[in-house]
Amino acid sequence: MSDVRRPISDAEMPEPRPLEAVRWSPDQRAVRIIDQRKLPNDFVERDLTTLAEVREAIHTLAVRGAPAIGICGAMGLVVSAAHHAHEPRAAFLAHTREFAGDIAATRPTAVNLPWAVGRVLSHAERTAGSVDDILEAMREEATAILEEDRAMCLRIGEAGAELLPERARVLTHCNAGALATGGLGTALAPVYVAASQGRSVTVLATETRPLLQGSRLTAWELSRAGIPVTVITDSAAASRMRAGDVDLCIVGADRVVANGDVANKVGTYSLAVLAKHHGIPFYVAMPTSTIDPTLASGDQIAIEERDPAEVSSLGNRRVTAETATVSNAAFDITPAELVTAFVTDRGVVRPPYDFRAGRSA
Amino acid sequence: MSDVRRPISDAEMPEPRPLEAVRWSPDQRAVRIIDQRKLPNDFVERDLTTLAEVREAIHTLAVRGAPAIGICGAMGLVVSAAHHAHEPRAAFLAHTREFAGDIAATRPTAVNLPWAVGRVLSHAERTAGSVDDILEAMREEATAILEEDRAMCLRIGEAGAELLPERARVLTHCNAGALATGGLGTALAPVYVAASQGRSVTVLATETRPLLQGSRLTAWELSRAGIPVTVITDSAAASRMRAGDVDLCIVGADRVVANGDVANKVGTYSLAVLAKHHGIPFYVAMPTSTIDPTLASGDQIAIEERDPAEVSSLGNRRVTAETATVSNAAFDITPAELVTAFVTDRGVVRPPYDFRAGRSA
Repeated sequence: MSDVRRPISDAEMPEPRPLEAVRWSPDQRAVRIIDQRKLPNDFVERDLTTLAEVREAIHTLAVRGAPAIGICGAMGLVVSAAHHAHEPRAAFLAHTREFAGDIAATRPTAVNLPWAVGRVLSHAERTAGSVDDILEAMREEATAILEEDRAMCLRIGEAGAELLPERARVLTHCNAGALATGGLGTALAPVYVAASQGRSVTVLATETRPLLQGSRLTAWELSRAGIPVTVITDSAAASRMRAGDVDLCIVGADRVVANGDVANKVGTYSLAVLAKHHGIPFYVAMPTSTIDPTLASGDQIAIEERDPAEVSSLGNRRVTAETATVSNAAFDITPAELVTAFVTDRGVVRPPYDFRAGRSA
Repeated sequence: MSDVRRPISDAEMPEPRPLEAVRWSPDQRAVRIIDQRKLPNDFVERDLTTLAEVREAIHTLAVRGAPAIGICGAMGLVVSAAHHAHEPRAAFLAHTREFAGDIAATRPTAVNLPWAVGRVLSHAERTAGSVDDILEAMREEATAILEEDRAMCLRIGEAGAELLPERARVLTHCNAGALATGGLGTALAPVYVAASQGRSVTVLATETRPLLQGSRLTAWELSRAGIPVTVITDSAAASRMRAGDVDLCIVGADRVVANGDVANKVGTYSLAVLAKHHGIPFYVAMPTSTIDPTLASGDQIAIEERDPAEVSSLGNRRVTAETATVSNAAFDITPAELVTAFVTDRGVVRPPYDFRAGRSA
């Protein structure tokens, strides 16, 4: 993994420089995030300094995207634990363990969150010396997770750019861009890399109900980078495919299990079926931190049910009859056989898929 | 057609009595509509008395649904022309012809609107005698269109109810219910009839972006009738099908052309592809007034592009970056080969489809 840990210099990053969705505050006492609930109308950065703030930011999607919440969780564990630096080692570690469990439980579907938090926790437990030494080691590990993610995004972008035809028309869902990661994004990384090579690439972004991450976030970050983007409703993707407007689909992932089944934002499975029907390649882009080799198939992944009000209300206005039931499963499972290839930091992976060896494969 | 024109008595209608989305005001000087923009929060009826009001109501979707806008257009032509009852016959007919063209052009995709308006106009042109005689004939023709629609909906319901299994779980899109017609609805008519027979039927309603007719209207009218309904985002339909939660899909239609291709609310094509992938029957319910035998295939149907703000704004709040393009095609085309059967007022029609003989087939 040593090469992955090598920090990516700014000179290596495509222009314009990507957003930094999650990073340290200058004094490293806070996790600084872009508050994605305010986009695209307001660009607001927030400093998270307590366990409650970290959990609230992750739960309310102020910070979101599987890699980004992993990074935020890892850094958030450090700033949460730092409030207990005056305690004896055993008490400090007990608190750190408790906080790690709390943060990891904030959202159930993405594996990056428990993975990243677990990495910082086990580093803490393995570190000898004072509480200050442990905290320093935790901070280094969280920083490494961020740096690795930045590097993995660039690799995903380089590998994925090879899959884009000339004058590529890419359809993506939700937001798996810079805002969702520590770097260039996952699904959007190939788009950024291709654009930085001077190639023509345009994006169709599904708005992604109920929280409109495609409309609010993907359209914003691509526009900011000068990449032409058109927002469509989720259900218009099929007719765009039929009309020949889509060369390929690329989406991110919240968890990829041993057999290659993918959990991602609800609607991903729909697009995968539609792509297959229209003979359009369907790619899933992900860092290896998104692999969960402990689950054999997608049926075992916990799907987060979010507040029905995300569907039944627009702002403060109720739009669904009070007497109707509303269901708001936030993710769905795409079976591996619908995935043309995975685009990872270790290159393009084609079927048959076997992720049993997991992140170290 | 004489039996179709026979008025349906209230005793023949399933309980609870359906809504009356479009009807005459008691003095027949206005078209009384339920203002569907206000639902589900407010039940408001509006009386349309001028050409401008009729066109505005149709354009802004205060009244919507292919059969309902046909009825509203037909009645609206009568109330618009009535303001010119003092004119000589030739001038009156010239105005009537002009208004018919204006109303028919208000929305391009549904064929029921030009069909119904054209019926009233040609009736006017064929009627001898005074302007009062012509107006009376126009009023009778518009009333006949309403009565026929009410009868056709009931027949669709009776034919479609036969297709529902025991404990049917029906997925529908947009609103093709009582609010979209002069009677029980088209896609929802079989649901109402089955429920009135004491059978168990539940409905999954896609919310139907951008204007949320499923969430706002279908959920409201089914709940009102005591039929269990669950609202899901459009892109959650696929995973519900994969989970085995859907026995059949039924949708309405805005135009069905000679070869059986269907124009309907955007997202219909998406659901048809998904239903095929999952081996789920996909039915299109429509009165014969929705058939357009003059077009050979769906490629020839004009698709209405509506204001991008319907997608890019929620209420007054902008949700999409100003720099992004937004596309808002309101309809899509479902090729005939994805339609398991049409459910019409003349019974269930199975492939191969041939609607060249049109409404009189």
